[in-house]
Amino acid sequence: MHATDVIAKKRDGGELSREEVEFFVQGYTQGDIPDYQAAAWLMAVYLQGMTDEETKYLTLAMAHSGDMLDLKDTVPFAVDKHSTGGVGDKVSLVVSPLVAACGMPVAKMTGRGLGFSGGTVDKLESIPGYRTDLSEAEFKAQLRRIGLVLTGQTAEFAPADGKLYALRDVTATVSSLPLIISSVMSKKLAAGADAMVLDVKTGKGAFMKTLEDAETLAEAMVRLGSEAGRRVVALISDMNQPLGWAIGNALEVREAINTLHEGGPADFREHCMVVAAEMLMMGGKASDTNAALTLAMETLSSGAAWRKFRELVEAQGGDVRCIEEPERLPKAQLIEPAPAPRSGYLAAIDAAYIGMAVMELGGGRKKKSDPIDRSVGVIVHYKVGDLVQKDTPLFTIHANDEGRLAEARELVLAAHSFSDTPVQRLPLFYRRVAE
Amino acid sequence: MHATDVIAKKRDGGELSREEVEFFVQGYTQGDIPDYQAAAWLMAVYLQGMTDEETKYLTLAMAHSGDMLDLKDTVPFAVDKHSTGGVGDKVSLVVSPLVAACGMPVAKMTGRGLGFSGGTVDKLESIPGYRTDLSEAEFKAQLRRIGLVLTGQTAEFAPADGKLYALRDVTATVSSLPLIISSVMSKKLAAGADAMVLDVKTGKGAFMKTLEDAETLAEAMVRLGSEAGRRVVALISDMNQPLGWAIGNALEVREAINTLHEGGPADFREHCMVVAAEMLMMGGKASDTNAALTLAMETLSSGAAWRKFRELVEAQGGDVRCIEEPERLPKAQLIEPAPAPRSGYLAAIDAAYIGMAVMELGGGRKKKSDPIDRSVGVIVHYKVGDLVQKDTPLFTIHANDEGRLAEARELVLAAHSFSDTPVQRLPLFYRRVAE
Repeated sequence: MHATDVIAKKRDGGELSREEVEFFVQGYTQGDIPDYQAAAWLMAVYLQGMTDEETKYLTLAMAHSGDMLDLKDTVPFAVDKHSTGGVGDKVSLVVSPLVAACGMPVAKMTGRGLGFSGGTVDKLESIPGYRTDLSEAEFKAQLRRIGLVLTGQTAEFAPADGKLYALRDVTATVSSLPLIISSVMSKKLAAGADAMVLDVKTGKGAFMKTLEDAETLAEAMVRLGSEAGRRVVALISDMNQPLGWAIGNALEVREAINTLHEGGPADFREHCMVVAAEMLMMGGKASDTNAALTLAMETLSSGAAWRKFRELVEAQGGDVRCIEEPERLPKAQLIEPAPAPRSGYLAAIDAAYIGMAVMELGGGRKKKSDPIDRSVGVIVHYKVGDLVQKDTPLFTIHANDEGRLAEARELVLAAHSFSDTPVQRLPLFYRRVAE
Repeated sequence: MHATDVIAKKRDGGELSREEVEFFVQGYTQGDIPDYQAAAWLMAVYLQGMTDEETKYLTLAMAHSGDMLDLKDTVPFAVDKHSTGGVGDKVSLVVSPLVAACGMPVAKMTGRGLGFSGGTVDKLESIPGYRTDLSEAEFKAQLRRIGLVLTGQTAEFAPADGKLYALRDVTATVSSLPLIISSVMSKKLAAGADAMVLDVKTGKGAFMKTLEDAETLAEAMVRLGSEAGRRVVALISDMNQPLGWAIGNALEVREAINTLHEGGPADFREHCMVVAAEMLMMGGKASDTNAALTLAMETLSSGAAWRKFRELVEAQGGDVRCIEEPERLPKAQLIEPAPAPRSGYLAAIDAAYIGMAVMELGGGRKKKSDPIDRSVGVIVHYKVGDLVQKDTPLFTIHANDEGRLAEARELVLAAHSFSDTPVQRLPLFYRRVAE
């Protein structure tokens, strides 16, 4: 088999066989197929698409390109959650300890942020000392001991995805459905969870701009998970406006801590409860949605979720004082509220603009290797549908540079639009997709 | 400007500006844009196409990526010819000295063979000592002195094409119209001829399988040449069956020598006369086709064309005894005729199969770096439409290896098909395309 034949077949719209997909993925991972052939192939896949079968073969080949974590000997059943990436999405920080506190082991490997999507690893690293580089042995030992791990992806899992993602990023082949699906699902399959909840974002601040695209992605991932023997439920949620109030790494950790103490924004808390309930049902901790939501809320209000979070931070070497007294977390030097330019109903807070503003402040990365400033970010004070009074603080910028602050302020201001007449609030979720 | 933005624009079917094309070609030539980005871009161009304007910008950017040869100080007017590549196409070996013998300077840089298309440089190198690596100074001096040069492309001309062609070859992006046009025309523009005849092949043994595709290519190249200030005429010629009888480097040189001595196959001789006549008209040596054809035939029969060829070989260091006594040219050890399996009219001789047989014998290359055996090849003894008698020699294989001979024999046999009823002969030319 020749790489050029596989490229040419996809170029001409042909359907690749399992053998052809495996040949290409293995060859690329091992370095037998060079970047330039993989780049041509990626563009052919981008423009010609892939069938469900091809996407499955691609995902499995990528999952098997490195180690496959087997958690069977560690815990009886492990759940995971994954978000397709959004602005202000700190759900994992609340949901993971909450579900683990209910006795459901949560084994989560999570990524760094790229573009205006934040990454859970980056957020956790706001906590001084918190280790995100656990070895497989440490991962298993901690999962066995406290039933909860939140760490970065180790190099041994789905190395094909690591290589392909880096290449997609520089060849304008990121936003392709089969490539997104295989990237997400290969890592999840390799990471060994038995069941997972996928939080598929749609809207201005998400990869999938339309509900239709999000549904296509969600349905394909649920199908694929099921064919690979994993239970998968996808929730399609709104990402037109940011989730919660805080956007920026340390600011989001603080908001998650407030939420674990029963504070925090209502939309974010509700979002967490719904995701947690799905995970609890998957693991058999509740028989229906009502029971699952009740359990989730009780676990929050009893303080059990907070205590599990504290246990997690301690287990992974983080400075527990910084979460007990969140003012010890990294803090920006310039904190400046911006007054509302007019009165009116908030008609939109464009999540993409907010994400760009945080990148502008230094809180996100354009390239994978960019350093980030964990202290900076944006706090929005209102949500779509709220009635705002002129000159009250509309949002607050946390910055370490006057120039960047000014540029971010313009972006965040431009993200807000107003209406003279009442505006409907945005839903949190659009649809639940299950087998 | 970012390479990924240019890739994304073409990926989405956008029309690239002159600046964007130049940025990409210059960046790639200088090594600022890596192979993998160029590969993704090539695949996007392959699948999304290019407008006439974009193709022109691409061609000019590639032509200007290296030295531009200026022949104005050397000769008043220089003509060139170019074939898009075929099987048994040794036309340049006859036409170039013939036209030069009429007082029209011919300045030709020519390529090596790749796939089943032979290359004039490879053929000429069958003549011991013949140099195909003239410097620019040698090129000009010889053009001034004898009015004829047939040499390889030097590295300084259109280096963008050299890099891009090598990349296209390994990324399944060869057969794209804008990429073919820009590859051919950029080299021709850089090589400095004032006028050129393009021999655009169509049929089973050509890049362009259909007449329609060949016409599209021919028309685009004529248009492009004219916009770049060069006179271009394209002849669309048949490449379903091989041209002439001989296929293989030294065998083709021998057939060209026979033709210069008024022997050789009728179809090949006629093809040469038509191409030569076009070149003579372009250079003002004849006012109409009739006069041009008469001049071409006279120049052949007077021996002037042969003498000019002899002068060329001598000027470029070739062993003249080898063309005076062609049995001195490289000769294969095994020469085996194959009897016709049946009687009947020859319905087809698939040029692609013949080309593959010659590659199988070692006379062609799959990769640019492959060595080739100049002595091997195939002689066909009949052309489509001929009545063949069972058991008379249908073709002869020249080989240096028994196993390869047997495989080539099967391929060449499979290339021949027969009919019980008379079969129409194939035309030599289908159409002439001029401004």
